[in-house]
Amino acid sequence: MNFEFQNPTRIIFGAGTITRLGEVVSEYGRKALIVTGGGSVKRSGVFDNVVASLKAAGIEYAECSDVEPNPRITSVSRGADIVRAEGCDVIVVLGGGSVMDASKVISAAALYDGNPWDMILHGQEEVYVPTEALPVITVPTLAATGSEVNCGAVITNEETTVKSFIQIPLLYPKVAVMDPELTVSVPKDQTAYGVCDLITHVTESYLNGVDNTPVQDRLAEGVIHTAMEWGPKAIADGNDVEARAQVMWAASVALIGWAQVGTDAPYPVHMMEHTVSAYHDITHAAGLSIINPAWMRFAVKSNTAKYVQFAERLFGLQAKSEGDLDCALEGINRFEEFLRSIDCPTRFSELGITDELFETYAKDTLKIVSDGKGNLPGRPFLSVDDMIEIFRAAL
Amino acid sequence: MNFEFQNPTRIIFGAGTITRLGEVVSEYGRKALIVTGGGSVKRSGVFDNVVASLKAAGIEYAECSDVEPNPRITSVSRGADIVRAEGCDVIVVLGGGSVMDASKVISAAALYDGNPWDMILHGQEEVYVPTEALPVITVPTLAATGSEVNCGAVITNEETTVKSFIQIPLLYPKVAVMDPELTVSVPKDQTAYGVCDLITHVTESYLNGVDNTPVQDRLAEGVIHTAMEWGPKAIADGNDVEARAQVMWAASVALIGWAQVGTDAPYPVHMMEHTVSAYHDITHAAGLSIINPAWMRFAVKSNTAKYVQFAERLFGLQAKSEGDLDCALEGINRFEEFLRSIDCPTRFSELGITDELFETYAKDTLKIVSDGKGNLPGRPFLSVDDMIEIFRAAL
Repeated sequence: MNFEFQNPTRIIFGAGTITRLGEVVSEYGRKALIVTGGGSVKRSGVFDNVVASLKAAGIEYAECSDVEPNPRITSVSRGADIVRAEGCDVIVVLGGGSVMDASKVISAAALYDGNPWDMILHGQEEVYVPTEALPVITVPTLAATGSEVNCGAVITNEETTVKSFIQIPLLYPKVAVMDPELTVSVPKDQTAYGVCDLITHVTESYLNGVDNTPVQDRLAEGVIHTAMEWGPKAIADGNDVEARAQVMWAASVALIGWAQVGTDAPYPVHMMEHTVSAYHDITHAAGLSIINPAWMRFAVKSNTAKYVQFAERLFGLQAKSEGDLDCALEGINRFEEFLRSIDCPTRFSELGITDELFETYAKDTLKIVSDGKGNLPGRPFLSVDDMIEIFRAAL
Repeated sequence: MNFEFQNPTRIIFGAGTITRLGEVVSEYGRKALIVTGGGSVKRSGVFDNVVASLKAAGIEYAECSDVEPNPRITSVSRGADIVRAEGCDVIVVLGGGSVMDASKVISAAALYDGNPWDMILHGQEEVYVPTEALPVITVPTLAATGSEVNCGAVITNEETTVKSFIQIPLLYPKVAVMDPELTVSVPKDQTAYGVCDLITHVTESYLNGVDNTPVQDRLAEGVIHTAMEWGPKAIADGNDVEARAQVMWAASVALIGWAQVGTDAPYPVHMMEHTVSAYHDITHAAGLSIINPAWMRFAVKSNTAKYVQFAERLFGLQAKSEGDLDCALEGINRFEEFLRSIDCPTRFSELGITDELFETYAKDTLKIVSDGKGNLPGRPFLSVDDMIEIFRAAL
């Protein structure tokens, strides 16, 4: 277990912290690009509050709105163009994971003359690794991805139907201003997707990582326990700020890196899902909710002891032995039941997706990440046929 | 639950990472002050390896050795003097918590013309808050305090018999190079004390913090579980590098801040112990091991539900209700049994300490931290009589 870890993002967490945004932004720049998604932050009044806070601190702003749920590289280019045209020197992002991901890439693209798609891993031999970026201040309005406190971003190229990612320390946000009150208007289904998303972030590292990472395992289990306890409360009553706060913090901790250090884990479920949602405009977490249990049932035999641990520690089951496959499978059943209990889909058919493109998804996934021998890294490594089998089990 | 959090320390973890030290130090300076304790790093060969790595990277060095187990302010002044005399521009610290704590204060004292004791909280009206410090690179040789990844330091003034602390973001180490192989020669008793120390760091925030911090609770429980599982393995076989690595990482996670964010917890057991070990040259963790269970039995009625949670989640006990005092007390008994199973003392008499100075410890503790009304903050707040009662229960 050798690793390096550093997460320099400064976190300001709590109800009402949004009022401090202007003061925080003024430490980093004089003119902000405010990046937003589909308009909910305008309808909810958050945008106006943010502008008021910036103005009070003497910060000017320009705007890049309408970033898509699966953010496109053209939106990145558009944002970078606005930064250059308007002379912005800091980026403030209001929204969920998609908007935050786009903003992180905009921060580097604005200082790069080439095509921003050069920075995204997508099977080309050389990826351009940016070395400078504008400061980014994240203001999450949805608890889900942890993007507010990590250095990753997932971007779609709509021309080539490729969805892939960048993850480099340069892209850590300078500050995350996390105000759970901003999430009270998130509808039930998106709240539930957020819960599924955050859980999947830790099941990936937990189930695909190397052996003997006991601290990391316990942290991951702690995040899942918390999500299963407080997620349903936030879904049941969106105005429960306490539940909103717990889910928001759990989502950040899920992908801040604490549960991942030293696990050296590939994220096969994410890689497969990215390919699916490059073809269908579905919420990322809906795809995860469908693929993850099916993947677990495929992978359980490769790493049974870990699934037994999952079953015992998360669902209180009692295994007969370390390799008790029945117990491991029952743990997966219970997990899937939890997803269904919060109304997340667990079959493609629920979203109207058929088996038509299963082979395409599998082959496309390998174009993004592969071991060079036609397999997707994970525990176990997956061939095209394996992936098709998993997709089919989730039909 | 409102909080701010930022821990910028870069962590390089794993067996063999010590060979990278010179390269790392060269990013921060050209001449290092190497700070060490009683000489074990010289006997074990670690010091020579470090010097070789520095030399290979073209780094000169000066030396400040013999920092005490409960580090004294005079050692801080001595280290700062060497920095100035030798023109050092970076500090490399090899040792346990005491040596790391001293080094962090040296890093600020070297750039401050006044008395370094001005920086330490000790009941005076104005504490001097330093604003600049040399970069510090920590190389822990003992898994215990987490000092390698946090910004706190505990220092003793031997003239006034006051032991107190400083904790400011300026003092975060730049890098922690954590090589578990450096800890294989730590003797059984010191290894056990390290396990007790790290557990006490999280019981303090867990049991003294505000309500409704579920993620933090789970992280704290994860650290304790890991310490109770892997600590005895490291004690049984010092050469078990796997166990050494798990305990080393658990010790860092225990006080890196992840389990503490938002808990707003005072550390009453630490405050009482600091006063005791200001009078007796005992290992800090030995004092903690004695005071912590006695304090828990005193405090249990003020926060019974949390102690029930502790009993259930850590020791698998089943409470009859949220307020089941018997279950809570049984959890404390089990915890004390664990401490005894790794040969940590749980009574003052085992260290030859009598009740002679109990009132003095209690009154001195209030000189360091007090609510202004004669009570030590915690759950519950403790009067002088309360503290004496706790000390007496641990006699």
